[in-house]
Amino acid sequence: MTRILLCGCFGKMGRVITQLVADRPDCEITAGVDLQCDPNAAFPTYTDIYAVQETVDVIIDFSHPSLLSPILGYAAQNGGIPVVLCTTGYSSEQVEALKAAAETQPIFYSRNMSLGINLLIELSKKAAKVLGDQFDIEIIEKHHNQKIDAPSGTALMLADAISSVREGETQYMYDRHAQRKKREKNEIGLHAVRGGTIVGEHEVIFAGNHEVITLSHSAQSKELFAVGAVNAAVFMCGKAPGLYDMSAMI
Amino acid sequence: MTRILLCGCFGKMGRVITQLVADRPDCEITAGVDLQCDPNAAFPTYTDIYAVQETVDVIIDFSHPSLLSPILGYAAQNGGIPVVLCTTGYSSEQVEALKAAAETQPIFYSRNMSLGINLLIELSKKAAKVLGDQFDIEIIEKHHNQKIDAPSGTALMLADAISSVREGETQYMYDRHAQRKKREKNEIGLHAVRGGTIVGEHEVIFAGNHEVITLSHSAQSKELFAVGAVNAAVFMCGKAPGLYDMSAMI
Amino acid sequence: MTRILLCGCFGKMGRVITQLVADRPDCEITAGVDLQCDPNAAFPTYTDIYAVQETVDVIIDFSHPSLLSPILGYAAQNGGIPVVLCTTGYSSEQVEALKAAAETQPIFYSRNMSLGINLLIELSKKAAKVLGDQFDIEIIEKHHNQKIDAPSGTALMLADAISSVREGETQYMYDRHAQRKKREKNEIGLHAVRGGTIVGEHEVIFAGNHEVITLSHSAQSKELFAVGAVNAAVFMCGKAPGLYDMSAMI
Amino acid sequence: MTRILLCGCFGKMGRVITQLVADRPDCEITAGVDLQCDPNAAFPTYTDIYAVQETVDVIIDFSHPSLLSPILGYAAQNGGIPVVLCTTGYSSEQVEALKAAAETQPIFYSRNMSLGINLLIELSKKAAKVLGDQFDIEIIEKHHNQKIDAPSGTALMLADAISSVREGETQYMYDRHAQRKKREKNEIGLHAVRGGTIVGEHEVIFAGNHEVITLSHSAQSKELFAVGAVNAAVFMCGKAPGLYDMSAMI
Repeated sequence: MTRILLCGCFGKMGRVITQLVADRPDCEITAGVDLQCDPNAAFPTYTDIYAVQETVDVIIDFSHPSLLSPILGYAAQNGGIPVVLCTTGYSSEQVEALKAAAETQPIFYSRNMSLGINLLIELSKKAAKVLGDQFDIEIIEKHHNQKIDAPSGTALMLADAISSVREGETQYMYDRHAQRKKREKNEIGLHAVRGGTIVGEHEVIFAGNHEVITLSHSAQSKELFAVGAVNAAVFMCGKAPGLYDMSAMI
Repeated sequence: MTRILLCGCFGKMGRVITQLVADRPDCEITAGVDLQCDPNAAFPTYTDIYAVQETVDVIIDFSHPSLLSPILGYAAQNGGIPVVLCTTGYSSEQVEALKAAAETQPIFYSRNMSLGINLLIELSKKAAKVLGDQFDIEIIEKHHNQKIDAPSGTALMLADAISSVREGETQYMYDRHAQRKKREKNEIGLHAVRGGTIVGEHEVIFAGNHEVITLSHSAQSKELFAVGAVNAAVFMCGKAPGLYDMSAMI
Repeated sequence: MTRILLCGCFGKMGRVITQLVADRPDCEITAGVDLQCDPNAAFPTYTDIYAVQETVDVIIDFSHPSLLSPILGYAAQNGGIPVVLCTTGYSSEQVEALKAAAETQPIFYSRNMSLGINLLIELSKKAAKVLGDQFDIEIIEKHHNQKIDAPSGTALMLADAISSVREGETQYMYDRHAQRKKREKNEIGLHAVRGGTIVGEHEVIFAGNHEVITLSHSAQSKELFAVGAVNAAVFMCGKAPGLYDMSAMI
Repeated sequence: MTRILLCGCFGKMGRVITQLVADRPDCEITAGVDLQCDPNAAFPTYTDIYAVQETVDVIIDFSHPSLLSPILGYAAQNGGIPVVLCTTGYSSEQVEALKAAAETQPIFYSRNMSLGINLLIELSKKAAKVLGDQFDIEIIEKHHNQKIDAPSGTALMLADAISSVREGETQYMYDRHAQRKKREKNEIGLHAVRGGTIVGEHEVIFAGNHEVITLSHSAQSKELFAVGAVNAAVFMCGKAPGLYDMSAMI
């Protein structure tokens, strides 16, 4: 039974994790930390992580970048409790700090907490390596109509990962409109579809001679990041110091 | 039994039509016209349409724009034989001429001879009308890596048809990269995927609140234009003078 | 501004509707009915519909089959307020009763409250009519792994609607495994995919000579039924007596 | 420059290979074998493989099972020329014979010559291993309406490969119609769609909590098996004795 300390337990993702863990037989929320305590919560809650009394096996953090330092400090003080960092928005200094801390304590940190997306990245690299330059690669991503950036960060992660295993320099093509020229071999086309409330879809297309391979991922709700966090927490129990990410689970 | 006069009978599409018709019980190639005769052909062949002796019910033309005038002339002289024009590359003057001729003789002329594509256009208009401005519309088309223009003519036909039934002015969006702004309600996104030997795929996406409707067409080979031509020929038998296109068959 | 009386206002769908309406400028919840009142609600609430004091333009019902009679009675007493019935599980007697009531008062009742699904049905009928027996029709539906019935009710609605416009008798094919025989022209293949937490996807495939048309609908959450209910409510304002369903809005 | 001896050079696939090789700079057809010679062919042709005079680097066979023995014999006599066997319909005795021959000469033999399908199998195994039993697996295959067997041999290859990496016993589910029971964890659903002229599509669906991963392959024409054969031929040049298949190229 994995005992979890959940930081940000009353936030949106914190509540989803609490629900998810309640439905699993292999782990439990042993204590929670948030801006306010709630004596009616299903587990003891604290406003200061250093006040936590319970013994835990792993920490999941979905709170705020400003809490990075006390979380890592508390984990180190208590024998190197593994920490799964799911908070987004760290500064580059903070990312450096957490990498440095990982030399002496076990830390899990991934830009995308979905197991599926990380698997998609691995499979796309494998496919790009095998298929070589006889196949043309295009990426289509679809998101809701409120999304501001395009293409999505995940689409760029995919394109970067694919580029890293291809020979020569890859060029990203965002718009073929009115160019009147044939596709170049070293292009990766990136297409950003926006509409309605689409949560997030990514599709990597490998088009060759008379055959097309398509690898795709569809997210139905943001809950999947909570699923990824809990899986990572169970995975991290008892791990040695070091920096871990989703690729370690694949 | 529909008797067909096939112009361009030894061209690539002419041969496909000959094969297709041989497999159908409801029509036959009664005579053919091409640059050279072939005494071994399964039907009498001529180099000059005015030399054709056989009585036919309909003419299918897959030859060359320069033959428009003799074909229409021969059809008119012989009691107004319906003509299915599948040749591409007519000048705007020729298009005007064929429209004028259609006032006195039955002529079938469609920018795209695929029944499926023309149905997709009709269904997309219907969907756009019903769903109104609560759904965002995006079009993805996929073609082989030798295609020069983007987006495809068919994608533009789709976008134009949808725009014609929407209120207000529609704006085509070809590239969202680096814009950092939300999608506008009046946009139609157009995405041109290029790769391998993809014959032609078109997908119209209607993305709303918690639901997405997708209408798509996939062409497996150019033979489908031959299928459309033969269907149009059977449809045109006995028709009154006028200009017909695929929408008449839908 | 459409004034809505919401029955079942504190149920799961009632809360979704309250949220949806709050975000729309063209309608408001004027009063609510549920098993208990809540003085803190954003609108007056009642436990008995006959106690409602406010004047409303339309009633949305997401409560319980047992309330059908008082809802229709109250609507009739108050000048024939249009009623949008979204409750599921009516007995066949109740369905007969509501149809009888619709002779004297305006009632909206649809087996599936999604505008998208109802549009998909209309488009599939249109496509089946146009494409005739030269195209083979197959339906794939995908749902979560807890669903007990297969194929889904919506897949059967689709198949029945398509059959109604085809010539001859249609046969539903659920399993081709180990049959070792070619597809018959009059078949509709029905495939029930089950997995994970898929909310609901339906795909109608029309496969012809060298082309395939696919019409599909993907539901992202059950909220879309709430969207359909609010749209139906706005649509029903001021309508004459009669039985209405989603097809009236398409 | 890889010099190829092509057996079955005037068959349908032989002609496709001739065309393909003509378009590639890295290989050439040096000689051909078929039932009849053609003095007008672009390369010397023979009716008996033992009569071939030219020196070649590799043999591609798309002829007939009855020629297995002379082909392997000629290859062995000439210093162990690598052989790429693409002929289908070998008896189990012949398969045993070629495996035995592979102990002393290099032989390439794969049940499916598509690089894409073989990659799809590898990626599906990888995904099944990583995702474990938290994801439900379903396979959809689509083929033309003349296909007699269902599911396709390739769908079964996929299911078998996935089963081989999963814990416990996997059960194939062909029909959920009228069962009225929930999906079991150890099922793989297999769905055979039949329609029109679809060449061949395979889709492996991994459906988990709030996310779905789909890996798919679409064949546009049988030419892709020729592409696979030529790639295999180039790959086999200079290889040591042994039995090779597509997985060796992945």
